[in-house]
This record gives sequence, C-alpha cells and structure tokens, in this order.
Amino acid sequence: MSFTIEIITTGDELMTGLTADGNFFWAGDILASRGLEAAYHTTVGDYMERIIEAFGIARGRADAVIVSGGLGPTDDDLTAEAAARFLGTGLELNREALASIEARYRKRGRVMTEINRKQACLPKGCTVLVNEWGTAPGWRSESEGTVFYFLPGVPRDFRAMMEAYVLPGLERAAAGRPAAKTRLVRTFGLPESGVAERLAGMEREGVRLGYRAHFPEVHLRVTAYGASADAAESLLAEMTDDITARLAGYVFSVNGETMEEVLGGLLRERGLTLATAESCTGGLIAHRVTNIPGSSEYFLEGVVSYSNEAKEKILGVPHDALVEHGAVSGPVVEAMARGVRKLAGSDIGVAVSGIAGPGGGTPEKPVGTVYIGTDSASHGAGSERFLFFGTREEIKLATSSRAIMTVMQILLNNV
Amino acid sequence: MSFTIEIITTGDELMTGLTADGNFFWAGDILASRGLEAAYHTTVGDYMERIIEAFGIARGRADAVIVSGGLGPTDDDLTAEAAARFLGTGLELNREALASIEARYRKRGRVMTEINRKQACLPKGCTVLVNEWGTAPGWRSESEGTVFYFLPGVPRDFRAMMEAYVLPGLERAAAGRPAAKTRLVRTFGLPESGVAERLAGMEREGVRLGYRAHFPEVHLRVTAYGASADAAESLLAEMTDDITARLAGYVFSVNGETMEEVLGGLLRERGLTLATAESCTGGLIAHRVTNIPGSSEYFLEGVVSYSNEAKEKILGVPHDALVEHGAVSGPVVEAMARGVRKLAGSDIGVAVSGIAGPGGGTPEKPVGTVYIGTDSASHGAGSERFLFFGTREEIKLATSSRAIMTVMQILLNNV
Repeated sequence: MSFTIEIITTGDELMTGLTADGNFFWAGDILASRGLEAAYHTTVGDYMERIIEAFGIARGRADAVIVSGGLGPTDDDLTAEAAARFLGTGLELNREALASIEARYRKRGRVMTEINRKQACLPKGCTVLVNEWGTAPGWRSESEGTVFYFLPGVPRDFRAMMEAYVLPGLERAAAGRPAAKTRLVRTFGLPESGVAERLAGMEREGVRLGYRAHFPEVHLRVTAYGASADAAESLLAEMTDDITARLAGYVFSVNGETMEEVLGGLLRERGLTLATAESCTGGLIAHRVTNIPGSSEYFLEGVVSYSNEAKEKILGVPHDALVEHGAVSGPVVEAMARGVRKLAGSDIGVAVSGIAGPGGGTPEKPVGTVYIGTDSASHGAGSERFLFFGTREEIKLATSSRAIMTVMQILLNNV
Repeated sequence: MSFTIEIITTGDELMTGLTADGNFFWAGDILASRGLEAAYHTTVGDYMERIIEAFGIARGRADAVIVSGGLGPTDDDLTAEAAARFLGTGLELNREALASIEARYRKRGRVMTEINRKQACLPKGCTVLVNEWGTAPGWRSESEGTVFYFLPGVPRDFRAMMEAYVLPGLERAAAGRPAAKTRLVRTFGLPESGVAERLAGMEREGVRLGYRAHFPEVHLRVTAYGASADAAESLLAEMTDDITARLAGYVFSVNGETMEEVLGGLLRERGLTLATAESCTGGLIAHRVTNIPGSSEYFLEGVVSYSNEAKEKILGVPHDALVEHGAVSGPVVEAMARGVRKLAGSDIGVAVSGIAGPGGGTPEKPVGTVYIGTDSASHGAGSERFLFFGTREEIKLATSSRAIMTVMQILLNNV
C-alpha cells in the first residue's frame, strides 16, 4: 500500500485570492521529486472549527499530514489551539520552544515581547521542531497512527523546515514502498486529444501518464514506479523513448526545458546566430528568445515592423510584393526574413506576419492566418501558411511557438 | 446563516507541483469581490475514489460546490464518471452537450474525433452549462440540497463559465445579504509596505482593503459594504478617490485596466503614435503594447537592438557615444529613442538599455541597472537611470513597466 500524504494550508488570505498558495505548490513539487506524492490538499480560512474538522478528515485518510500556517503571534493564528483541542491534550508552555524563541531574539539584540510567548504554547506531549530560520517553532504530533507536522506559513521557514524535518521523516516512514521517478515531456503542434490518440495503449502496470494543456503546448507528466529507484528509472527511460517516437516532430523536450531554452542550446551548440522580424507577434518572439541568460551570444537583433513602411524601409521588402500579395503573405515574410538576416548579419532570419485579431480578418485571410518565413545559409528562403484559433494573445503566443519550432527544425537538419 | 461555498480542484498536475492552482486563486478573488467567500478548498489528484470522497465531504458541509478540472477527453479525466457514481445516476450521452461540441468543431472546419464524444457523456438528469469558449461542456447537479457546478480546468473556460453561470447562480442563492461593491486599484513604483504606509488609518467600518503584490505592480482590492448597492457604490467611490490622492503618481488604473490598456487609451485619445527601441527588454515593451486590439493605430514599429552594431546601423546611435558612455547609458538611450522616432516617423520614441543579468554586471553598473530614454515633440529628449532587483525575467518586466509609465507621464502632461 502506498504512503498517503495530506497537506493542509490555512489562512484567510489563501481563501480570498490575495495570496497564491505557494507552500502547497512548492511542497507538491518537492514531494514528487522525492518519489512521494501528496494525495490530498485542503485549504481553510482562520476559523477554529474548520481547522479542527480538516485535521479529523486528514487523520481518517492519510499516513502523514503537513500543516502550514497559523503559528504566528496574533489573534487569527489558531493552529496550536486547534491542534490541542483536536488531539485532546490541551496546551502548555513548551520550555524548549520558549528557549529557541528567546535565543533568536537575543541573537538579534532584541527583547522578546510577551505576545511571542504565545508561540511557545504547544500541545502537550508534542515534539518541538526548532525553527532556525524564523520565530515560530513547529512541532510533530501523532494521533491514531497518523503523523502531523505543524509548520509556519512563512515560505522561507516552511521550506527550510520541510527539508530539515519533514522530508527525512517521510522518507524514513515510506521506506520499503515502491520508488517513483518522473519526467515532464513537452509537445507543440498537436491538441491534447491528438497526443492522447497517438499514445493510446501505452498505459500499463507501473506507469502513470498525466496530460496537461498548457496553451499552446501540451505537457505530459510520465511517472514510473519500480521496486527500486533503478528499476523505476529504467522503466521511465523506456517509456520516454517510446513516447518520443510516437510523437516525433512534436516533442521538443523530455526534461521540462522550455522551447526557448532548447532553441538557445541548439544555436549555441552549432555556433549560429538569429535575427527576427515580427509583425503580428509584436516582439514576442524576440522577448521569449531573450528570456534566456546569455542569449546575446546568438540573438543579434529584432525588428517589429508593424507598418508597411517599416517593412519596406528597414527590411527592404519590395513595394511590389506588398501591393501584389499583401503584408500577410509568403513572399513578404520571406523578404522580411531575408531583410532582417542581412541587416543583422545573422546565420538565420525568421519572420512572421499575420492577423492576430480581433479585427482585420477577410474571407481569404481570416483572423488567425499567419505566414512564417525563414532565410538561412543552409536552407535558403521558405515560408508556410498557418491558421491559429483563439484570442489575440493566444494567436500571438501560438505564432511565436510555431516560429521557434520552425527555427529549431532548421537547426536539427543542419548538423 | 452564511452561505457556504467549497471549491474542489482536481488534477495530478496540481498535486505534484507541475501547475499552480490558478483557478482556485482566481475564484477566491472573484468570489470575495462579489461579497461571497470560499470556506473550504480541496485538491485531489486524478484518482476516482479520492474525487468521489471529496464530493461527499463537500456535500456534507457546503451549500454550493465548484469543481474544476477532469472534463477533458483523455483517460485521466475522471470527473464525469466520479460525479455519476457519487450522484448514483450513471452516465448518458447528453445530446445538448454533444451538439455544442460538434458545433464547435464544425465552426473550425474540423471533424470531431470519437474521443471527444466522451466529453458529452454526463451524469443523467444534470443541467448542461454550454461552453462557448472551449470544447468541454460543464454541468450543474444537485444532491441533498447542495448545488454542484462542474467546470473545465482550462483557465479561460473556467473563468468564462464562472462569470456566465456560477456567479449569477451563487448571487441569487445568497441574495438578501448586505451588498458589496469592489474595485481593483493597480499601482506601480512602490513596494507593498510603501503602499500600506500611505494608506495607514484608512480602515473603517464597512470597508475592506486587500493588498496583493503582483510583480512588478501592487494591487489593492477595495471592497465597500452597504445596506443597498447604491450605498456600497457611493462609499466605494469615496474610498477610491482618497486612495488615488494618497498614492498620486503610483496609481495607473482604478478599474483593473492593465498598464498597456491605459497607455493605448491615452495614445488614441490624443491621436499620437509610438515607436520603441529595446535592448535589455528584448521586445517585451513592443509585445505588451501590441497585446491591445487595434494597437496598430498608434504603434508604428519597434527595434530590438541587442548588439552595438544594430544600435549604430539601424538607430543611428553615434559610435562615440557607445565608446565613451557604453551601451547602458543616458546618452545612448536618448540617441536610441531619437533614432527610432525618426525611423518610424512617430510622435514619441521610447528606448531602454540595461543589464538584465544574471551575468554582465560591474561595480558601476550592477545587474538591474537600466536607462530609459524618451524623445517626443512635446518634451524633447530625456533619460533616467533605474536599479531593479530580481531575476532576469523580473528585471525585464519591471523595466518594461517603468518604460510604459514614463510614456504615460509624457502623455498626461501633453493635454
């Protein structure tokens, strides 16, 4: 039987959309990376009866419960009292906790205030988890075979105490259970249903596939279980190879890398440089490419040529091409790609022109119509027409991804 | 008795730290903005028995339950079957749901795949919530006096369907309670503590101020309660005026408008045009400006001049200025702004150059050092130096916001 973990996060600020629940997000990730998995997550505001109720539900279904928040000194910090009532032990001034708070204040040359004594009042019989990173001590309690870890909600303290106390404890408790290894495969160019169709029949014992539409990409979380870490890792590698083969041309990374990271790696590896000419994406391609540290090594320059004048004057697009084919056309994006490549003196030029909407569509070129052109020493000039759906921002995003993939394909065929 | 709402979000990706729970965060915010409050929040992975269990717990304690996720076409989308088992109704092919999916595919000129039929299999007797924003239909079911709303997890669909179906339903169900009116005030340029300090002492009966750091902005949710909608609205207007006065120069919108929306409105109102020259932001300013529909009316062109050659050749930055002051300097950004304004023939040119990091910093110009320059008919040329902190992407984002604010200030002084 697997080891069941529940995370309970408390605080009005989480319930009212004022603060994102970063502790849960972080904890889910680090647990998964250790082959552990949070099975349940509950959030409640600062109400005594709701917190106690959440403890009871968690005890009924989990082997270990991690509680975040409500350990501060103010009136709306209710966790210690809620835990004492739930455990039926009552509160007492915990000498070890008090000493750790006093030591912290002394170290900073400050005097502990009376209000902080509250933070040393913990359920009787608990094990103190000393907080070396902040004021509020945490603690560990057991009830009917379920272990509860109570941690402060301050993210720095929560994370440090998770690493120092909780993860080692959970790994000991879960020892001997099956190991899990996981990997994030990122794809572009197929809808979620298309990815699923191609992977149909891959499910098998010991493997879990999770799909996630992350517009305009589809991500796959592949988890493999095995008797040992090595067995899980080897099953995972086998599955990943199979997935990559079935989705050839759509998978751009199997380790969670972003598209612009992969592009940057390829450009750097091959010692090639890039320049961009953008119309409908308005600078988004250049923005994404330059999000990568060190991108100035391979990204030379970009032009956002929103007007026809800019396309002619800066990029040297022939006036006739604009008149004859329109700004949204194959000949124009090829000329833009050639123009920016020449202007920048880069190895590759990529250009896009399209109708991002919501206005500007025609029957021949509806909103979402996009041309992507490239020009490179290895492949010469070329262009392709696409049709994307969605809002203006979605069409911009999908176009930028398609353009980056197009450059990646040139690089992959250019060994 | 208060009206109790629970939110259940489902998906392995939420439990394993792959995806932040944006739907819960957004829902908590919008519920609070309508004077409603989520009392409980539960997250579970894609496991049939855990989902059913969560439905049961929610039914026992909530008047209304909002369920997000698991409505997709793949095998790990379990919500419909879980709901059917929980409600004891079984699944059936829902004709209305099927028709809405088919219509959507037809509109896009695609054929519905067999796998999508699954998305039309809903619990018997439910009320379909037509999804006009995506593929997966939602539905509404009742069980033992508790209303369940089942919505797709895709954020765009979730939000649209919350607004179209759930909020009106909850507001009707919760009617008779005091009215609440709310407003989102967006600020830039002060840290959260600076905003809080300037607003100290504003709290009073019938008003709630919620702060939220939304890098690089700080948002304020102002909620006013009153016996009637008019009373709440009038208190809200009074509070908003007071806040705007206390935060003069930092507030850029009092109705949730984004910075680029406000900028676009000002440019259009005054009939002026803009061009951008970007170094460290790599196209982000142009991208943000062109996110606004119709921005081609006032945005003429942008140059991403990552290299010094591009700064000289395209923008006409004097070679001497680059040698004497360096690319990250006042004289260079002023020359860039002048150059791009001339190139585009625009009324205003804005330029940025800086060190986004993580490499490239020096003692005189550490990472985060940024110069912003402008050139306009009304104000001539000018530049200012800033120091931003954070990751590469954060420095890019803060710089782009500062540049947009700078242009807005020119426009506001140019009536």
